[in-house]
Amino acid sequence: MAFFDELAARIERRDTVVSVGLDPDPDRLPEFLDSDLPRWAFNRRIIDATHEHAACYKPNAAFYEDSDGWRALEETVAYAHGKGVPVLLDAKRGDIGNTARQYATVLDSVDAITVNPYLGADALQPFLSREDKGVFVLARTSNPGAQEFQRLEVGNGKRLYEYVAQRAAEWSEGNVGLVVGATAPEELEAVRELVPELPFLVPGVGTQGGDAEAAVEHGLAGGVGLVNSSRGIIFAGEGSQSAERYFDAAGAAARRLKRRLNEYR
Amino acid sequence: MAFFDELAARIERRDTVVSVGLDPDPDRLPEFLDSDLPRWAFNRRIIDATHEHAACYKPNAAFYEDSDGWRALEETVAYAHGKGVPVLLDAKRGDIGNTARQYATVLDSVDAITVNPYLGADALQPFLSREDKGVFVLARTSNPGAQEFQRLEVGNGKRLYEYVAQRAAEWSEGNVGLVVGATAPEELEAVRELVPELPFLVPGVGTQGGDAEAAVEHGLAGGVGLVNSSRGIIFAGEGSQSAERYFDAAGAAARRLKRRLNEYR
Repeated sequence: MAFFDELAARIERRDTVVSVGLDPDPDRLPEFLDSDLPRWAFNRRIIDATHEHAACYKPNAAFYEDSDGWRALEETVAYAHGKGVPVLLDAKRGDIGNTARQYATVLDSVDAITVNPYLGADALQPFLSREDKGVFVLARTSNPGAQEFQRLEVGNGKRLYEYVAQRAAEWSEGNVGLVVGATAPEELEAVRELVPELPFLVPGVGTQGGDAEAAVEHGLAGGVGLVNSSRGIIFAGEGSQSAERYFDAAGAAARRLKRRLNEYR
Repeated sequence: MAFFDELAARIERRDTVVSVGLDPDPDRLPEFLDSDLPRWAFNRRIIDATHEHAACYKPNAAFYEDSDGWRALEETVAYAHGKGVPVLLDAKRGDIGNTARQYATVLDSVDAITVNPYLGADALQPFLSREDKGVFVLARTSNPGAQEFQRLEVGNGKRLYEYVAQRAAEWSEGNVGLVVGATAPEELEAVRELVPELPFLVPGVGTQGGDAEAAVEHGLAGGVGLVNSSRGIIFAGEGSQSAERYFDAAGAAARRLKRRLNEYR
C-alpha cells in the first residue's frame, strides 16, 4: 500500500494525527534502562506506552549514527511495525547521484523519510521514484534561523520555501509531503494555500512552542498529515519515581496531544 | 591544531590537493575481499595504496549507514589518522536544535564535515562552534539539477549559492570552507571572487567530468583547498586480474590526479 494511504488508514483507525519523535538523546535517557542497547530498550517501552495514540513514529537519524545506534534503530522500526505503526525516518538527507541512491536504500526498511531540497530534484529522484514510500521535503523548518535562506524572495513575490513547496507538489506522484513548522503559523497557512493537496509533517508544537491549532488546521490535506512532538512526549516522565511511572507519563503526554489536536480536526 | 592549518601542512608536505572519496558502493566492491567488514577491508587497502598522494580522505556517510557500516567507518578513520591523513566526513547534514548538536558529535572523531545550509546559521552553530574542525558548507553542488534552487536570484543580482557563500564567509572563524562543484567552472570562478579567503572542496573532476584546471585555479585560497575524486580513484582497478593490481591501479589513479592538478598550482 502506498504510504499516504497507509497513513490515512492509521489516522482513521486510531483517530490521531500524532507523530511521536523517537529521539533518544543519550544525555537524557533514564538510568534504569538495563540493556546493552539502551536506545532500543527506551524506544520499546515508549512504543508500548504510546502506540495507541501514534499515527506514526519519527526517529531522527542523528540519534542513531553509530554502530549500536543502527542496531537500535532496526529493532525499533521492526517493533513499531509489529504494533502496526508506520515509521518516518527524519534524516533530512540530500546528496547526488550514486550517493543519493545509496541513501535511498533505507526506504527498504522504513515507510517514509524527510529530505532536504537544496540540491534540486535530480538529487531527490532516488527517493521520489519509490512511489510506495512517503517523501517529506523540507520547506519551512521550525527553527528561529529558518528565515535566513528559506524566506529569501526568489521572484514573482515568492519566498524560497514557497517555491520549494510548489516544486515539491509538481514532483509528487501521490508520495510527497512537506515539512512546515508550527512555529510560524502564518507561513504554514501560506504554504497550505499554495499546495492544497500535500500532507504536511508539522514539527514544533511541543518544546518549541508552536501553534497546535494552526498545525491541524493547515497541516492536514483531506484529513491526512502529521503533527509531531518528540521531547514533549518521550521525556514527559523525567523526574518520575519508577520506570513504570516514567513511561506512563509518556503515554499520557501522547494521549493529551492527540486529544488537543483532535479538538481542531 | 585547527583543521585548515593541519590541511595546509599536509598539502605542503605531500605536495597534493587530492581528496580521495571513500565511497565503498556495495555493488562495486571487488569479490576478493575476505573480511566480515568488507568496506573496512577495502578502505584499508585503498588507503595503503593512495595515502602518499592524499591531502585528505572523504568518506561519504551514505555508504556507512548501517551497523557494520559505522564500524567500518570508525576503523577507516582511525587508519587514515594513523597514516597522518585528515578525514572529512561528507555527510551534508543540516538539522535543528538538539538534533544538530547530536549530529555534530561526529566531529569528535573526524576532522571536518560537509553541511547543508538550507536550515540557516542557527542549525549549523553546533558545527561552526567547533573552531578546531573544518565545516564545508554546500554552496554550488556538482549535480545537473543543482541550478534548480541554488541559481535562483535572491536579490541584489545575487544567486542563492552566491548568497550562501557570502553568509558562510561571515560565519567563519577560520574554520569554514565551501563545496563548489567543478562541473560549473564559471560559477566556481564567480564564487571565488565573492569569497577570496575560503578554501573550497571541489567535487566532480572525476567521473562527473568537471574542469580540473578551474578546480585548482579557483578552488584554493592561499594554496589551501581540496579537489575530490571518489570513483575515479577507488574503482580505477576494476577488471584487474589480482587484488594487488586492483589497488595498484587506485594508487596510480591518485598519483595521476595529483600530478594533473599540480600542473595548475
